[in-house]
Amino acid sequence: MEKLYYSYEHFLTDTKVLIEKIDEEFDVIIAIARGGLCLAQFLGEYYQLRAVYSINTIGYNDSQKLDAVKVFNLPQIKDASSVLIVDDIVDSGDTLVEVLKILSEAYPHITFKTASLFYKKSAKMTPDWYAKEAKSWIDFFWTEDIKRNN
Amino acid sequence: MEKLYYSYEHFLTDTKVLIEKIDEEFDVIIAIARGGLCLAQFLGEYYQLRAVYSINTIGYNDSQKLDAVKVFNLPQIKDASSVLIVDDIVDSGDTLVEVLKILSEAYPHITFKTASLFYKKSAKMTPDWYAKEAKSWIDFFWTEDIKRNN
Repeated sequence: MEKLYYSYEHFLTDTKVLIEKIDEEFDVIIAIARGGLCLAQFLGEYYQLRAVYSINTIGYNDSQKLDAVKVFNLPQIKDASSVLIVDDIVDSGDTLVEVLKILSEAYPHITFKTASLFYKKSAKMTPDWYAKEAKSWIDFFWTEDIKRNN
Repeated sequence: MEKLYYSYEHFLTDTKVLIEKIDEEFDVIIAIARGGLCLAQFLGEYYQLRAVYSINTIGYNDSQKLDAVKVFNLPQIKDASSVLIVDDIVDSGDTLVEVLKILSEAYPHITFKTASLFYKKSAKMTPDWYAKEAKSWIDFFWTEDIKRNN
C-alpha cells in the first residue's frame, strides 16, 4: 500500500485548514488519545482554550461485534454546552462513533462536533470538519520522527 | 526578558534527549494538559504505550495560599504500578507538586516519576528527568506556529 510521510509542516498546514473550516466556538476540546493529542494542544492554543481534555479508547474483539471499542477516562464536562472532539484520522469510524455515543449518552445537553486531520471515505461517519481525505497509509511525524537517529 | 523561539526541531531533539535520560519503564504516561500533550503523544509512540492519559490543572487565588493549583480529570490508573507524568516546563513547580500530591494520595501503591522538556532552577521541585534548563521565556512552537500565516 502506498505510504505518505506526514511531516510536521503538513500537520501545521492542515491544522490551519481545519481552523479555517471550523466556524463554531467551543467550551471544551476533547482529544481522542493518543492520535488527537498534539492536534488538541494546537487547537487549544489557537482558541486560547485551557479546557483541553482527553479520552481513551481501546479496541477489542467482541463475539457479538468484531472490532468493538471500549471508551474510558471520560473527562468531566457537565458545565460545557459545546464540545469539539478531535482525532488524527477517522479510519473505520468505529472509534469516533463510539466516543460520540458514550459522550452523548452521558451528557445529553451538550452539542458535540467532531474534527480530524484525515478521514477515509469508507468510514462509517464523516467528521463535521476534516482537512484531507486519506487515500493511502499515513506515517505521522509523531510516529516516524521519534524513531529516527538524525 | 529574553525570548527563545522553541521550534519543532528543538522539541524533537530534546524529546530524544529526554528518552536517552529516562532509564525506566512505565505502564502509563500522564500528560499535564495542555503543555504536556504533544510530548506525551511522542513518548507514547516511542515506548509503544497506548496508555497515554491526561490530567488538568487550573491556577486560582486562595486566601491562604497564593497561586493555588486545582487538579481535575484524574485518569483511572488503579491497575498501574509505575506512571510517568510529563509537562512541557516546570516553571514555579506549583503544578507538578500539586499533581504529584493528588495522584500519590489517590494511588499510594503507584511509583510516580516526572519528566519535562524544560525546568527552571527556581522551581520548588526538580523533575526526575528534563532535557534543558530554562534561562529565558520560551515561545513554544505549538503557541507560535499556529498564529502565523505563512
